[in-house]
Amino acid sequence: MSKEERILEVAMRVFRERGYHAASMQEIADAVGMQKGSLYYYISGKQELLFMILERAIDTITARLEAIYQSALPPREKLRQAIVTHVETVSQRQDMLTILLRERHALSPTQQAVMQEKSDHYERLFQRIIGEGIREGEFRPVDIKVTSFGILGMCNWIYQWYRAGGRLEAREIGGIFADLIFSGLLSGAARGGEGHAR
Amino acid sequence: MSKEERILEVAMRVFRERGYHAASMQEIADAVGMQKGSLYYYISGKQELLFMILERAIDTITARLEAIYQSALPPREKLRQAIVTHVETVSQRQDMLTILLRERHALSPTQQAVMQEKSDHYERLFQRIIGEGIREGEFRPVDIKVTSFGILGMCNWIYQWYRAGGRLEAREIGGIFADLIFSGLLSGAARGGEGHAR
Repeated sequence: MSKEERILEVAMRVFRERGYHAASMQEIADAVGMQKGSLYYYISGKQELLFMILERAIDTITARLEAIYQSALPPREKLRQAIVTHVETVSQRQDMLTILLRERHALSPTQQAVMQEKSDHYERLFQRIIGEGIREGEFRPVDIKVTSFGILGMCNWIYQWYRAGGRLEAREIGGIFADLIFSGLLSGAARGGEGHAR
Repeated sequence: MSKEERILEVAMRVFRERGYHAASMQEIADAVGMQKGSLYYYISGKQELLFMILERAIDTITARLEAIYQSALPPREKLRQAIVTHVETVSQRQDMLTILLRERHALSPTQQAVMQEKSDHYERLFQRIIGEGIREGEFRPVDIKVTSFGILGMCNWIYQWYRAGGRLEAREIGGIFADLIFSGLLSGAARGGEGHAR
């Protein structure tokens, strides 16, 4: 791990434990084990630290989704992998989503715009996979935007309730979500009355 | 609207606009149009205000869900109404969910425990509707907890993206979610390979 990566890891922990506003550069320097002056050699301040942490997190998950989207898999399999990967990432980085949702207004307008563009891009990849599935006849002709926000919401919300070491692994929860999204809740018997083509 | 209800409405707006921590009882008194001393006649302080706002919101949505749960409708129709009602409520009270998620740690331990118990109760009602649907053969035998958290997450997440006056009404978004949850994304043609009984 490079010095910079180590600083980001430690800063994220300090932000999570102390809160972004309460945390000071001095505390972060102490936690990394360096002089505050040396810390400023790497990072201009708390706001830049927050931005770099969030940017790195979204770049990582986007690279994973890009790889899934660019693969030769059928759309259904792409979407399953996208759902499982998203759930796994959120479960590993619950604190990151908490910090993003709670502190993003602490970023500069330019930094906020960069984050917005990156998250829009991530959402568009999700939407393209659903669109591909509709075009190829694997998926029903649903409202792509609402469906994609719905799936992402289902996956994001686990940052509120997932506990590591619980009954199910994140991967299993992602699988249950994917089954639900693909096949729905209705039993075969109930499907007569309310077809999926309505 | 009673005096107390008016105070809660105004306080919620002040908390949303200024943030819970930045808002003062003086500002809330000014916004209501009363003396700070008179405000303290109704409310012991900011923390009690926050608690009463959140408690009232969750009691309202729970009463709606109780009525749906107690009705004689088939489980499938109960769940559809539960989803649409939840989406509509979140869309009307986006600020409330923001305040709940961001500020609930500002409540006293006892108040936090009350809120937790109330939200657990709400989730259990959702889970009972799904359980009923499984027992009556309308729904597949899914993992009730994960499915219910998934559906609630899908619905809750609209607090992040829903904009009033947009392309779709909250009611329509709820309907799209319900269709997705009931019938799934797979087209009839694609259902051969990955049945909903897996």
